[in-house]
Amino acid sequence: MVEAAAHSDGRVERGNATRRLVLRRTMEVASVEGLGGLSIGRIAGELGLSKSGVFALFGSKEELQLATVRAARSVFVKAIVQPVLEMPEGVARVLRLCDGYLEYSRGRVFPGGCFFLAVATEFAAREGAVRDAVALARQEWDQLIMDALTAARAAGELRADTDAAQLAFELVALLDMANTTSALLGDETGYERAAAAVRGRLRAAAVTGAGV
Amino acid sequence: MVEAAAHSDGRVERGNATRRLVLRRTMEVASVEGLGGLSIGRIAGELGLSKSGVFALFGSKEELQLATVRAARSVFVKAIVQPVLEMPEGVARVLRLCDGYLEYSRGRVFPGGCFFLAVATEFAAREGAVRDAVALARQEWDQLIMDALTAARAAGELRADTDAAQLAFELVALLDMANTTSALLGDETGYERAAAAVRGRLRAAAVTGAGV
Repeated sequence: MVEAAAHSDGRVERGNATRRLVLRRTMEVASVEGLGGLSIGRIAGELGLSKSGVFALFGSKEELQLATVRAARSVFVKAIVQPVLEMPEGVARVLRLCDGYLEYSRGRVFPGGCFFLAVATEFAAREGAVRDAVALARQEWDQLIMDALTAARAAGELRADTDAAQLAFELVALLDMANTTSALLGDETGYERAAAAVRGRLRAAAVTGAGV
Repeated sequence: MVEAAAHSDGRVERGNATRRLVLRRTMEVASVEGLGGLSIGRIAGELGLSKSGVFALFGSKEELQLATVRAARSVFVKAIVQPVLEMPEGVARVLRLCDGYLEYSRGRVFPGGCFFLAVATEFAAREGAVRDAVALARQEWDQLIMDALTAARAAGELRADTDAAQLAFELVALLDMANTTSALLGDETGYERAAAAVRGRLRAAAVTGAGV
């Protein structure tokens, strides 16, 4: 029994390792080409794995796409959200989230730039579970920025009349634009422009001494 | 000879009509699914045309994609740029361009929203003539906004220290965000948010009395 369990554990571990290997590759591919290019056969071939083995782990192209979106969400959270978890609520936390996004895009955590922008327009006008997962990740990010702004306002660092939803819209717009300018035009100046504009928007909304 | 010329003219006209029919369809498809889904066989099938006839007009998938980008550029110019050509240089002209973009996106001149944003990320990380055409259209639009801002500054309606490139970056960011929010999330509130923010940015840069 013990041996059988150990054997089974080994198989599970190998399965998990293969799963991670596959998802690392699918995230890279999708950030450049979109999720449409992910087929189990192609990815298995590129990684030298058997198609049936990868199929056993993911079951379908849609499942592979969904697992890729979930994996990318984890990478995004680890790169941008986790570093601010210990920070007190306030303007500095909002600024850190925005700068974190710019670093994540500029540093090409994914080779094509922001994973979620790369796949957003691809699925924008479609229906289905993949579109829903991409849209949800996007809404979570918008909400995270809005919550951080609301908390900064509650902490007395942003003026009481600050419209958090409107300001979140403007900040995310600037971050997206920096990514698009770099990914499409190869123009890196957008990162400085976005960083400057983010500071400008926060400064305009901050109470004196909030230190933006 | 006269008859032969007339016959030839008729053939050219029919070819042009077919070309317009095909491009109307490919622009619709690409604004929803991207340019990758355009194949001569598929489009011919959908329109009930012969594949060889469509092939004779376009020659290759890449040519069809390039012709689609050119046609979409014409639609964009007609919808957004032509209406401002008679306007005097100044802030009102910049505002009309921005509002024109928001109406073009919201009114779904293309069913998937802005054609150029729909195809931008798809080709962002690739190489080739289609990517170059998409990037060029994008740069032309950025430049148009920047030139309109520079002219408004020269006309004395924007403060002399206005950074036209920075302000253009911020305005286009807001316009893009409104389109993305609508196309991906089905959330139309971005159009009002963008319109309000565009006015806020222009007002902050305008000299008193410029009437934003």
